[in-house]
Amino acid sequence: MREFILYSRTGRTDSRFPNLREGGRLDVVYQSVLMSLFRSHAIRRNVTFHALLGGPPNPPLELIVEGEKLRDVRTDEKTWEDILRRVLSGREHPGITLRKNSLQHLVKEKTNIFVLEESGESINTIDLGSDPVFVLGDQVGLPKKDEDFVLRYGKKVSIGEKAYLASACICIINYILDRREG
Amino acid sequence: MREFILYSRTGRTDSRFPNLREGGRLDVVYQSVLMSLFRSHAIRRNVTFHALLGGPPNPPLELIVEGEKLRDVRTDEKTWEDILRRVLSGREHPGITLRKNSLQHLVKEKTNIFVLEESGESINTIDLGSDPVFVLGDQVGLPKKDEDFVLRYGKKVSIGEKAYLASACICIINYILDRREG
Repeated sequence: MREFILYSRTGRTDSRFPNLREGGRLDVVYQSVLMSLFRSHAIRRNVTFHALLGGPPNPPLELIVEGEKLRDVRTDEKTWEDILRRVLSGREHPGITLRKNSLQHLVKEKTNIFVLEESGESINTIDLGSDPVFVLGDQVGLPKKDEDFVLRYGKKVSIGEKAYLASACICIINYILDRREG
Repeated sequence: MREFILYSRTGRTDSRFPNLREGGRLDVVYQSVLMSLFRSHAIRRNVTFHALLGGPPNPPLELIVEGEKLRDVRTDEKTWEDILRRVLSGREHPGITLRKNSLQHLVKEKTNIFVLEESGESINTIDLGSDPVFVLGDQVGLPKKDEDFVLRYGKKVSIGEKAYLASACICIINYILDRREG
């Protein structure tokens, strides 16, 4: 198993948004789902993606997308706008759940946690163990308080000195893990 | 310089589409632009992206997005739906051009061409030279006739045995090249 946790500081927590970008940058959540869960004509059944949504009106909410159970999805943003709107209005979609939860509580449930940071230990040398959980900030980054908390449970890991989009970081981590497994 | 050429077999060649997905999978073009040209809070000025659009009503058209000149952009699909609609209706956007051109003609203008294929030589051992140009198929892949033609001018290169989304392939190639330059 692989897990990705995206901290979305402003992600809207109801379905009243005109589009994903104006939903507190839910477009970043979409892009991260895309790179977490999709290969060419295939869903990564061994990946679970979490987004911690911190925007109005009901924060914090945890959105969970489980590759193992995910059905009826496509790869474009419009499809995910419809899905997120449905789930955030209390309706269901196979493989997607929503619950009241904070980043701090979520992290306490997990082991083998790695926080993505340019200054961390290289992903090429660090021991990821089995079933690693990667924590990523959104376009703004993790709040200092949350980062300090998460680092009590995990380690900083780096994929290089350059700063990438959260979705690109996820793509790169999936690729690196694929190469090891292959 | 780095260049990516995406062959979009069905990409719509006018602005009459309800959304990118229903525009002959122009959402794949958007995702490829995202992973070609954007880092965190930065545009990759050293990348040029091309999409060869083969859909109705005016194929083939070449869409060119030049990182060096690109302005007034954001990373979400909705923004790119607006931009592509504008450009495909004959209006302008800084850094983006449209011209009548085919994949075969485009390839003849280039040197150092690499066609992405799982069966190609590993990107870790192949000599990419300077200013490599990568050719990728869309969700269906390159037509055999075009692939045979392109391979008269270039080589097959592989990033691994797994099949990834075109956008993920671009992300991975950018990352591998970043690591070499870093």
